[in-house]
Amino acid sequence: MSESNSVLIGNKPVMNYVLACITLFHGGAKEVNVKARGRSISRAVDVVEVARRRFLPDVKVKRVGIGTQQMAPREEGGSPTNVSTIEITLER
Amino acid sequence: MSESNSVLIGNKPVMNYVLACITLFHGGAKEVNVKARGRSISRAVDVVEVARRRFLPDVKVKRVGIGTQQMAPREEGGSPTNVSTIEITLER
Repeated sequence: MSESNSVLIGNKPVMNYVLACITLFHGGAKEVNVKARGRSISRAVDVVEVARRRFLPDVKVKRVGIGTQQMAPREEGGSPTNVSTIEITLER
Repeated sequence: MSESNSVLIGNKPVMNYVLACITLFHGGAKEVNVKARGRSISRAVDVVEVARRRFLPDVKVKRVGIGTQQMAPREEGGSPTNVSTIEITLER
């Protein structure tokens, strides 16, 4: 699997990311990684659920991983902050 | 494992739910389920990450499950809406 089979969830509408997943699978991908950080985590779950239930019934959730990523301080002298992450691997 | 070993994530601060997890484990629980719906899903991941990294280093994420729950219509004649769910099982 190539590293490019990833969909990084941001602030756009859920359907944009659903379409990205569908496009990857229709392009022959066997696995697609849906990744998100912070508040986008809820949207990542929405994307996966909509994609699977409405458009890709043959696709399964292979693995869900959660973790923490340390972010550089926003201003000089600030302390680094932690942000939660999720990575959902979809498999056809 | 009894069904009561669950922490349902709502709109309170993350630390409230972290404390609930710690209390359950200190009370002898071997497993604790952290559950959330909709926008609280991101907070559920925060709770698990803070609890594990800062307070319960011997606790591991056993399983992360995602799904969809159908909610009754808010008003009569309305259509039911779907909401995403997450269930994170922690194991000591």
